Amino acid sequence: MGRSLPEASFDVVPFARDAWCLAAEGQPPQLGHVPALFSIGNGFVGVRGPGEAAGAPRVYLNGVYERVPIAYHEAAHGFARESDLRLAVADATRPAISLDGQPTGPASGVELDLRRCVRTERVTSGGIEIVIEQFVSMAHDGLVLTRVAFPEAADVTAMALVTPPPGSGGAAGAPPEGAVYDPRVAPVMADSPWVELQVSTAPGSAARTDSLDKSGFLVACAMQEIGRRTIDGRVQVDFVSGYRASRDRGALDNLPEILRAAREQGYDALLAEQADWFAHFWSVSDVAFPGQPNAELAIRYALAELAMAVGRDGKTSIGAKGQTGEGYEGHVFWDADLYVMPVFAFTNPAIARAMLEWRISGLDAARDNARAMGQMRGALYPWRTIGGHECSSFFPAGPAQYHINADIAYALETYLAATGDRSILDGHGAEMLVETARIWLEIGFHDAGRDDGFVINRVTGPDEYSAIVNNNLYTNLMAARHLRLAAREGLAARLIDAAEADRMVRAADAMFLPFDEERQVYAQDDAYFRLAPWPFDETPPQSYPLLLHFHPLAIYRRRVSKQADAVLALALMPEAFVAPMRQRMLETYEATTVHDSTLSASAFATAAAHAGDGARAAHYWRVAALTDLADLFGNTDHGLHMAALAGSWTTLVMGFAGMRVDGDVLCFDPVEIPGLSDYRFTIAFRGAQVDVAVSGRSATVSVRDGRSVRIRVGGEDLASPAQAQPLRAI
Amino acid sequence: MGRSLPEASFDVVPFARDAWCLAAEGQPPQLGHVPALFSIGNGFVGVRGPGEAAGAPRVYLNGVYERVPIAYHEAAHGFARESDLRLAVADATRPAISLDGQPTGPASGVELDLRRCVRTERVTSGGIEIVIEQFVSMAHDGLVLTRVAFPEAADVTAMALVTPPPGSGGAAGAPPEGAVYDPRVAPVMADSPWVELQVSTAPGSAARTDSLDKSGFLVACAMQEIGRRTIDGRVQVDFVSGYRASRDRGALDNLPEILRAAREQGYDALLAEQADWFAHFWSVSDVAFPGQPNAELAIRYALAELAMAVGRDGKTSIGAKGQTGEGYEGHVFWDADLYVMPVFAFTNPAIARAMLEWRISGLDAARDNARAMGQMRGALYPWRTIGGHECSSFFPAGPAQYHINADIAYALETYLAATGDRSILDGHGAEMLVETARIWLEIGFHDAGRDDGFVINRVTGPDEYSAIVNNNLYTNLMAARHLRLAAREGLAARLIDAAEADRMVRAADAMFLPFDEERQVYAQDDAYFRLAPWPFDETPPQSYPLLLHFHPLAIYRRRVSKQADAVLALALMPEAFVAPMRQRMLETYEATTVHDSTLSASAFATAAAHAGDGARAAHYWRVAALTDLADLFGNTDHGLHMAALAGSWTTLVMGFAGMRVDGDVLCFDPVEIPGLSDYRFTIAFRGAQVDVAVSGRSATVSVRDGRSVRIRVGGEDLASPAQAQPLRAI
Repeated sequence: MGRSLPEASFDVVPFARDAWCLAAEGQPPQLGHVPALFSIGNGFVGVRGPGEAAGAPRVYLNGVYERVPIAYHEAAHGFARESDLRLAVADATRPAISLDGQPTGPASGVELDLRRCVRTERVTSGGIEIVIEQFVSMAHDGLVLTRVAFPEAADVTAMALVTPPPGSGGAAGAPPEGAVYDPRVAPVMADSPWVELQVSTAPGSAARTDSLDKSGFLVACAMQEIGRRTIDGRVQVDFVSGYRASRDRGALDNLPEILRAAREQGYDALLAEQADWFAHFWSVSDVAFPGQPNAELAIRYALAELAMAVGRDGKTSIGAKGQTGEGYEGHVFWDADLYVMPVFAFTNPAIARAMLEWRISGLDAARDNARAMGQMRGALYPWRTIGGHECSSFFPAGPAQYHINADIAYALETYLAATGDRSILDGHGAEMLVETARIWLEIGFHDAGRDDGFVINRVTGPDEYSAIVNNNLYTNLMAARHLRLAAREGLAARLIDAAEADRMVRAADAMFLPFDEERQVYAQDDAYFRLAPWPFDETPPQSYPLLLHFHPLAIYRRRVSKQADAVLALALMPEAFVAPMRQRMLETYEATTVHDSTLSASAFATAAAHAGDGARAAHYWRVAALTDLADLFGNTDHGLHMAALAGSWTTLVMGFAGMRVDGDVLCFDPVEIPGLSDYRFTIAFRGAQVDVAVSGRSATVSVRDGRSVRIRVGGEDLASPAQAQPLRAI
Repeated sequence: MGRSLPEASFDVVPFARDAWCLAAEGQPPQLGHVPALFSIGNGFVGVRGPGEAAGAPRVYLNGVYERVPIAYHEAAHGFARESDLRLAVADATRPAISLDGQPTGPASGVELDLRRCVRTERVTSGGIEIVIEQFVSMAHDGLVLTRVAFPEAADVTAMALVTPPPGSGGAAGAPPEGAVYDPRVAPVMADSPWVELQVSTAPGSAARTDSLDKSGFLVACAMQEIGRRTIDGRVQVDFVSGYRASRDRGALDNLPEILRAAREQGYDALLAEQADWFAHFWSVSDVAFPGQPNAELAIRYALAELAMAVGRDGKTSIGAKGQTGEGYEGHVFWDADLYVMPVFAFTNPAIARAMLEWRISGLDAARDNARAMGQMRGALYPWRTIGGHECSSFFPAGPAQYHINADIAYALETYLAATGDRSILDGHGAEMLVETARIWLEIGFHDAGRDDGFVINRVTGPDEYSAIVNNNLYTNLMAARHLRLAAREGLAARLIDAAEADRMVRAADAMFLPFDEERQVYAQDDAYFRLAPWPFDETPPQSYPLLLHFHPLAIYRRRVSKQADAVLALALMPEAFVAPMRQRMLETYEATTVHDSTLSASAFATAAAHAGDGARAAHYWRVAALTDLADLFGNTDHGLHMAALAGSWTTLVMGFAGMRVDGDVLCFDPVEIPGLSDYRFTIAFRGAQVDVAVSGRSATVSVRDGRSVRIRVGGEDLASPAQAQPLRAI
């Protein structure tokens, strides 16, 4: 049997104060993974929470990175030679606060109010309480606002301060001798690449500009005091922090102007804007679990952190950890498209569109990458990147994951289904679809030895514990779907001719799907069931995750999956499998999966729901939802797991409630979930706001503002417009 | 169709002066690959020939290396963290020679006399000829002898000189911008690791000692003038150069003593010793091709260079390039065991034994390596090493080649067959056999889905263009052979119990061999014939070798072999295949092999001979024999290809003459080879010297000194002792 994930429960959730508020009390050693967990941001600036040593990385800017050379002892043709390394920037978010002439100690408590995404830290010393309230403005790109409050009678000073980028001005430090190398964390650079360009301080303000030599990014930041008053015996000092980043020096020049505007607007007005922004956000995104405040908190936390991490400018996307930690060099992977994008497609479509625009902007780099990988036509998206070029140095678990192309196509298809906004196709969206689909024709072929089945050999599926396989089920199924969409939209956009469209459709129709006769299940790949089982009995708990304890080849040799792979296909494409097959696959792959990736749980949860297995679905859902709150995988400190956060929402909506789009119809088909009899959520669909209340296997669906959309519940079409009325109970 | 190797001919062989002498004339640009080709050595010291820029790497010491960190951008558990980098040492072999007060220019000619392995360079300037005669003493570990001769009337000075290690005292230089990265060449270090410990000069002598910080090696060398005389109007100045290397500083102390002894012995006496050494060597190793001096030269060159490169002290072996160039960091690979060892097992068994002793000395490191790779029992030899630990940083084409274990076992089996010297088993040889065989039980298993066939998944065979495959034919066949030998000898040595021996024999008996029904051939691996063919029609000649022009995955995805793999199994184990199968396999795999490795040609040649295809055998043999002389692969400058040199001999003996050992019987079964009607060679077998003269398909075998050995020719046993009499003609 595979590895069971620990049971996670909403009964006791760390840091849960109420359904809208996260709170931690205690000095740093007790705070655990608080620095990452209490991160705030606005999709551009990310600021980690309190609790770490001075000088630790704390502030990140989405899309700002250095280009660092990738060293190989034995390189080969086509290997990526440079990586985009996202580096923590100068910290302009932390005023210098002293009490009785001494710098204050660590925070003794911190709260995160999810209603407005405002964070409040408390520093207590000798009976004096200093409160630091802070938020990153969703309404203003580069602004962080901070209010420091303390008793009038206390000898407290609070002054603007900007500290240099971590590690600048010296070696960034080497990992301690004998440390276990963890490939999930960014490599440490021997020398900091930051170049200090300008530093200025004046009464009430501090500013600096640094640059990154190879990428050419300039980062300007400043903090200014913008208000000071005394109310009821407590002093309030307000600060604005501003960040600008660009490769164009001129683009930084308006930072003083931005700061002046913020000063004129004032802290309270900016906070009101923040409250308005999130009031709207929650009105189109909120969930409710009556009587289960901790479950509510967990999903709200997920939605809030996703919103605070995702780029909304079409020039950035969302890294595996957002701007909340050092993990994975800040790189964007497939989970941005496959896990996060659908959340926004059905709640905040403008954000989803911006994510797609970022992908589309990378089309030329993806063409370059395809050439490097030996494909003469088409585009292959990089496995990990910030700027658009492939940054993976380990191709078996990186560039071999060709499914990235199909994942992006799936995201585009999901966006089209959710919004009906076909204008994305005109803006090179159709071109991206076609160019990425061409890759399948380049690397696959109709195998005469398999009745002309279309085979795709030597790729890696989502399961990185089974690298370089033939006919990965997930890849082949997703490629078939991708090819059909590209043929249809490519023809419509006159990007391909009928002959090429025909090739695509024929490949899709003939797609080979490996099948295991003995188990009567689709096989993860041609050889999966030919491998010896992983020796679970001989693997103690401390040997997980396997990737930190076993050579890759020792893992590849065994029948063991890091994460959902065939099961992910089941989660995304339940229509491809008949009902008994779903349950067989779920049980077969559960027995071989170790869930060493946090992407696994929500896929298992959704697939279990599709199989009608509510208890299993609920178990995995709780794991996804509490991955970071309960630090279930022990590495939340590297940054929040954006895919797990997103998956906790998609499991609820697409798994539990069985939501999917069939043509123009929004369909629901709820599954009975033990312990979750009632829940509500809201969905954006084709310009309408759809409120859904599920109770057991029944759903009440209402469409706001009398908009006309087609709804189906439990297979039964409903009259439209359908406003605030129960639609079906089964 | 696969890629055809260029036709190679003995009609015109570059640098062939006569059947014993290689000679090059002309200034450096015309000399081409002369620096590597005219290398001389004694298995410890190697000195490249003339023709390179001052300061280029020129002198190497076998077994002397620095430990350098291996950089990974994304590392994983069990990856090698350091590599043994063999570095060129200080040059104490080049006297400072000046004419009319100016340093002399480059050599205008060089000869290598294979009878004694003495090299003669000529420097001509203004009508003055300076002759530099040089040899590396086979009789004295670290000694290089040099005689400089010039006209008495000329204003020539020749003085002892030692130049520092290349690159020391500064950056070793970076590869030129835009250079094609060639993984077959050693990486360039940013900073030289050499530390100068001592430098001394005195009239007539120069000396220095340097150390390598991380490996701890110390290298002491010195040059002294040891004679000067005038004969017939020409001055002769004699020099001795000495090298000592050790991690123990005390071990260097006897260098002055060694030099004094050499001085006392004198150049002429040392040269006579050298002549004696090689006279014996040729008496037990020589080959003859009546009327074909160039073919004779080629095979003699191969034998001589192998003898000058191979370590004979049991503490060193032979790198892929010996001590003749920078290639492959000086590492020892499987070809030491599988290609080179058999040559010495059948000509100079003491050298073969020393090579095995070196392997045996690495048993503990091989145990460590097995643990790193995830095997709980047994030993896995490193894919590339000098000091014994794994130095490969790219596991798909490195540590995944588990066949290394079987290759070493094959070498041991060959040594036992050739010599009957079972004492090697007592000296931990049996332990090595058993420990390496255990790996097969660790990574393979009886697959119920394949009728309990013993399968070995996720390994790489000799063909590095088909990495991480299931059931590589070569690996499985060699593993079965290995398991049987280990069971027998392990039981005999009481190293294993009957149960373990039984497991080994059952695995061997049940070994799964992939078979392609359509082609009726054994398949290189489970999926080989499931892959799309390589598009040879679209691959221009300049796109070879593929590894320099295509991403590894683009290569892995296609049915293309870098080198003999299934065909190598055919070459080594013809008895495993019936005759028609041999020809089918040969033709099938010829059509998919590009021979991007110089190990390929001799395997194809031998396999072709086993298939009775003499014309094909002769073609590939000429390629192997002329690989370096004609620089057929364009990279002889990186160093001589020791495996190709060795393969040119084994093809002749084991392929053409069909030599093999059956129990205690030495068998021959010659194949008709077009253009090679008559040839002779000599073999050491069980203490006897066996002279073999082949004419067409008949062989005349004689045993020297009346020793009694059993001989079989063409299947017919001959009376023994059989001395100098024709034995059989078929």
